[in-house]
Amino acid sequence: MGLVSDKPITIAVDAMGGDDAPEPNVRGAIIAAEDPGLRIILVGDAAAIKPHLSDQPGNILIKHASEIIGMNEHPVKAIKKKKESSLVVAAKLVKDGEADALLSAGNTGASIAAGLLLIGRLGTVDRPAIATLFPTRKGFSLLLDVGANADCRPENLLEFAKMGAVYMEQMLEIPGPSVGLLNIGEESSKGNFLALRAHGLLQSSSLKFYGNVEGRDLPEGLTDIIVCDGFTGNIALKLMEGISIVIFEEIKGIVGKSWKAKVGAALLFSQFKALKKKLSPESYGGSPLLGVSGAVIIAHGSSSASAIANAINTAAQTVKHGVAEKIEKSLTPKKG
Amino acid sequence: MGLVSDKPITIAVDAMGGDDAPEPNVRGAIIAAEDPGLRIILVGDAAAIKPHLSDQPGNILIKHASEIIGMNEHPVKAIKKKKESSLVVAAKLVKDGEADALLSAGNTGASIAAGLLLIGRLGTVDRPAIATLFPTRKGFSLLLDVGANADCRPENLLEFAKMGAVYMEQMLEIPGPSVGLLNIGEESSKGNFLALRAHGLLQSSSLKFYGNVEGRDLPEGLTDIIVCDGFTGNIALKLMEGISIVIFEEIKGIVGKSWKAKVGAALLFSQFKALKKKLSPESYGGSPLLGVSGAVIIAHGSSSASAIANAINTAAQTVKHGVAEKIEKSLTPKKG
Repeated sequence: MGLVSDKPITIAVDAMGGDDAPEPNVRGAIIAAEDPGLRIILVGDAAAIKPHLSDQPGNILIKHASEIIGMNEHPVKAIKKKKESSLVVAAKLVKDGEADALLSAGNTGASIAAGLLLIGRLGTVDRPAIATLFPTRKGFSLLLDVGANADCRPENLLEFAKMGAVYMEQMLEIPGPSVGLLNIGEESSKGNFLALRAHGLLQSSSLKFYGNVEGRDLPEGLTDIIVCDGFTGNIALKLMEGISIVIFEEIKGIVGKSWKAKVGAALLFSQFKALKKKLSPESYGGSPLLGVSGAVIIAHGSSSASAIANAINTAAQTVKHGVAEKIEKSLTPKKG
Repeated sequence: MGLVSDKPITIAVDAMGGDDAPEPNVRGAIIAAEDPGLRIILVGDAAAIKPHLSDQPGNILIKHASEIIGMNEHPVKAIKKKKESSLVVAAKLVKDGEADALLSAGNTGASIAAGLLLIGRLGTVDRPAIATLFPTRKGFSLLLDVGANADCRPENLLEFAKMGAVYMEQMLEIPGPSVGLLNIGEESSKGNFLALRAHGLLQSSSLKFYGNVEGRDLPEGLTDIIVCDGFTGNIALKLMEGISIVIFEEIKGIVGKSWKAKVGAALLFSQFKALKKKLSPESYGGSPLLGVSGAVIIAHGSSSASAIANAINTAAQTVKHGVAEKIEKSLTPKKG
């Protein structure tokens, strides 16, 4: 499983993507650049980037781009129209071989479109998918697709499972990772049309197929990988995020109620903070768009500098481990 | 909006349904029977029921049924084969007018099948749906469908919204409740095929349509009603359950770690317990299968006696408010 290459890895960062861009992107790049094996190209408005980069490390470069794609712009229209946008310019660096990976915390749909249309699908892949590592009681599970494909065919879910298996083998060093199918019952007879068919395909594949996992099983971490269509996966991922936020705010609310509770809360404060961080997928760095050339990593719009640094590291590891090349091979029906 | 009738309401309870049946069902019936306006028929193995009913109130009856449908039996096969099961006998009491409502904490699929096949759909309803009130930051939202229809057409989601509106108007006294469509983005251009079409239908309906709500919005309570297909709704509901369980267990774990934390936790203990209860859909009594004659209420398999009592009360209120009759009328295309 050794590393493909030891030469420096170049990450093109869409510096203008994200709710508070460019600051967290630039600060995240500075943290990540402590690794001398990385080269980071910050793509965006140079005048906006420079103030956050007073002491520019030698392995951080700036590539000026004059336009920005907004969070609510139509993805495909935006990347076609805004050719000078930070996202499009960054994607082209990957396309042209000047960078190995793209990272964006901006408009997710536009990042997917840039991956699919500008960087391009791998030859053997039908439908690239966004995969997210989320924290479970046992560690992590990889959930995919979480939003690249709103409608799926059963064959797509099999492909997602195979791509996810390569990712978990390479990145988390789990040989023969187990695969679960997100479904509404444990029995193979349960599910919608898509899940029923996908169950059959997964069952007869060479993957280590566990069977169906239900919504309540997601936080339990029953399997290394969980596959579903991008609609269901997106709802599930955002719901996990929303519930955690509300529960921790309720806990805060309790604390304000009485002096006694305040004493209790002060003692527990640091532990709750750690738990909140542990449960936040955002802490673990971005989500890869699996199935495209090179590496495309999508980060949360509200990513902090440390989340961006983690995502840059994820991008670099994805390149180092040759995830794209190994996915392309694993999906080739006949080895040439 | 007044009540349809003041005569006693009769609830047929599947006494043998649920993880710990019949005990919580019988104890729940005893609590609910404190309301003299209720008559409760406990349907099941009389020899198993009686030991929990030492002091039998006059408004609790026992109807013997010799068979039990297991939690993992095939729903339709089970209700066709086990004609002497507690569920089938209870459903027939409703069918024959001897009871006004059915409550079961047993095999959910079998309860749905009993509602659809034994009790029967309302004449104007195409696809009955399970609706669940879940707690939000602002109070409650009604989510449907959470499992009766794994595959849906756009028209079904419009029907779910209309049925949900009648339920919220009658049961929670919310006039003109707002409706949200569970989707993967705020914009009307987002979604899978189903959600895109359903958005158009909801937009041009006479309902108070809010637009799309995302997974992270569910706990925020942006709308009174949220519609989705039964696959997505089931995943979302069970995921909410699973996450709450894990977070509260993690909190327990933190507490054990240090003496200081123990002191803090002891002070906060009662508040956390209240929060956990508040966040548990199970506390609020069962979920109605909307769109069938009479009232069919489905309770969680792990329902406690108080959850069963709440569900019996929900069943009685559903009957008192004439929810089924009003749904039937609201879905008639032309008023006769």
